Amino acid sequence: MKTLFLSAIVATSVMGATLANEAKKAGLQPIPSNAKTLGKLTSNPKNPTTSAKVELGKMLYFDPRLSKSGLISCNTCHNLAIGGVDGMSAAIGHKWTANPHGLSSPTVYNAVFYSQQFWDGRSPHLEDQAQGPIQAAPEMAASKDYVTGVVTSIPQYVTAFQKAYGKNTPITFEKVTDTIAVFERTLVTPSRYDAFLQGNLKALTPAEQKGLKTFIDKGCVSCHNGIALGGTMQAFGVVAPYKHANVGDFKGDKNGMVRVPTLRNIIQTAPYFHNGQIATLSEAMIKEMGRIQLGIDLSDQETTEIETFLKSLEGKKPAVTYPILPASTAKTPKVDAVN
Amino acid sequence: MKTLFLSAIVATSVMGATLANEAKKAGLQPIPSNAKTLGKLTSNPKNPTTSAKVELGKMLYFDPRLSKSGLISCNTCHNLAIGGVDGMSAAIGHKWTANPHGLSSPTVYNAVFYSQQFWDGRSPHLEDQAQGPIQAAPEMAASKDYVTGVVTSIPQYVTAFQKAYGKNTPITFEKVTDTIAVFERTLVTPSRYDAFLQGNLKALTPAEQKGLKTFIDKGCVSCHNGIALGGTMQAFGVVAPYKHANVGDFKGDKNGMVRVPTLRNIIQTAPYFHNGQIATLSEAMIKEMGRIQLGIDLSDQETTEIETFLKSLEGKKPAVTYPILPASTAKTPKVDAVN
Repeated sequence: MKTLFLSAIVATSVMGATLANEAKKAGLQPIPSNAKTLGKLTSNPKNPTTSAKVELGKMLYFDPRLSKSGLISCNTCHNLAIGGVDGMSAAIGHKWTANPHGLSSPTVYNAVFYSQQFWDGRSPHLEDQAQGPIQAAPEMAASKDYVTGVVTSIPQYVTAFQKAYGKNTPITFEKVTDTIAVFERTLVTPSRYDAFLQGNLKALTPAEQKGLKTFIDKGCVSCHNGIALGGTMQAFGVVAPYKHANVGDFKGDKNGMVRVPTLRNIIQTAPYFHNGQIATLSEAMIKEMGRIQLGIDLSDQETTEIETFLKSLEGKKPAVTYPILPASTAKTPKVDAVN
Repeated sequence: MKTLFLSAIVATSVMGATLANEAKKAGLQPIPSNAKTLGKLTSNPKNPTTSAKVELGKMLYFDPRLSKSGLISCNTCHNLAIGGVDGMSAAIGHKWTANPHGLSSPTVYNAVFYSQQFWDGRSPHLEDQAQGPIQAAPEMAASKDYVTGVVTSIPQYVTAFQKAYGKNTPITFEKVTDTIAVFERTLVTPSRYDAFLQGNLKALTPAEQKGLKTFIDKGCVSCHNGIALGGTMQAFGVVAPYKHANVGDFKGDKNGMVRVPTLRNIIQTAPYFHNGQIATLSEAMIKEMGRIQLGIDLSDQETTEIETFLKSLEGKKPAVTYPILPASTAKTPKVDAVN
């Protein structure tokens, strides 16, 4: 009896070890638990992470005064409290304008692990990405000059920039967005799944491991891979048209490719798809992906297995102390909020 | 020389002690530094403060899903990062509706020390107050049922309510707002001014003390008194009409009385007056108050003195860890956001 029991444990461990290797071979990678390795992945060599930049970047990320209305911050659409998104089917911006392409806000958590930013992948990294929404008329609607005007009108911000970059570095719009990106690079969420890939074979339950195996075997991993389980450009609606494709005029990049969203924290990033047309992590959503991307009909059991695995991707969010921002001054540009 | 120097110190201390007493006699009170005394003031006997309620109240305060759009939280208009306000002249709410009376969002910091809530004082305490904006059509626009529907659809919220109130207490709209109020009651901001009133006579500079003396002598203290330096109902435009009275149709309570705003953290709570029509803490604002409320022409010097004192009221904000909110479920009511 004892031998049988031990054998079962050994068999499970062997299976777990095999699965972890299989996952790695299929292109799945953990968020490194080693701070040095993680730092290499999350610090931009051209814009290295320092604590002064992270702290300032956090303030700017939460500061609604960077928007023309004074009401919308990065955190409005990429709300760190609710999975780094806004929960909207289409992002809502300046004066309640819905995203004109019907696009949903992607999560900022783990976005550092993406090889491209934006749904059409037009931006190579977070430093560049952050420039977009601040200026976009339906989002934060602020010009570069407006943003630098706000920041330079507030002495504590000027001091914080000097602390982060030295006394002689001019405060440009690009410095503002570079700094926001440094903060965003810290927003990674390791999970039990990462512990599993790193060798802690008990970190995932047998049902979650089964789901991971199905996820790999059925081919989901062909697009949802890497650290983010997403983040690269892939064709969309490969085999069959997407059920809700008639919402919005978004067509992906010039080759029709769409940036694959991360599956990390997926429970919190509803509604799903680029146009937010599927409300919950349901069988419908997983089956729809199988149908349009892989040309397969996933069974109810396979769908449930995959769903069980996906739920294990919920990660630990970094603790963020809500910033106390320095006060505006008489020089701070006037907002355009009340119609 | 030494004797002269010592005499000067003694004289300054005596002056400081006299001023602190004078301030107390005029009705100014410090935020108690003793936790027990503070607790007596900030805990509602009918809704006593507990750490479980504070933590849950914080989550609810920051949760945009309590609004019908899913985009507006208490913190949107009472943003803890920027002085507990939104920086708008008139509050902006559901689908970017400006407050129909042209009213500006009052700060949530130290609102626990107010004897009435809302600009027209129609609410006796924070528990009652919190019910207003969540339901108001131009603010969060959510019905009572909608709010309880959201909260009860999220198992972690149900557990947190049980932890805060016991297993058998039903989750009502009033329990939700009671809990938010408990969190708001923690938002007090002691400053150097409080230390001064409590006997640390070096806590205010001589110029700030001079400003406090002018503030008392000129009669500002007749309305701006108590712990909040405000928070009671007073007539507005007593002596002369307010310069910007033609903005909005707000007329105060049935007797024309208006709730006096706190002067704490005033640097961060611009724009000023109930309709936000004066943008900065300028001479213009202080002089306008002297003119319409006290019937006096404050000199440039007196105005500068008072301004110097007011700046000393900037307090230390409590550290708030930004909450990670539990995910919505398939049962969570659908939002009304995209037009």
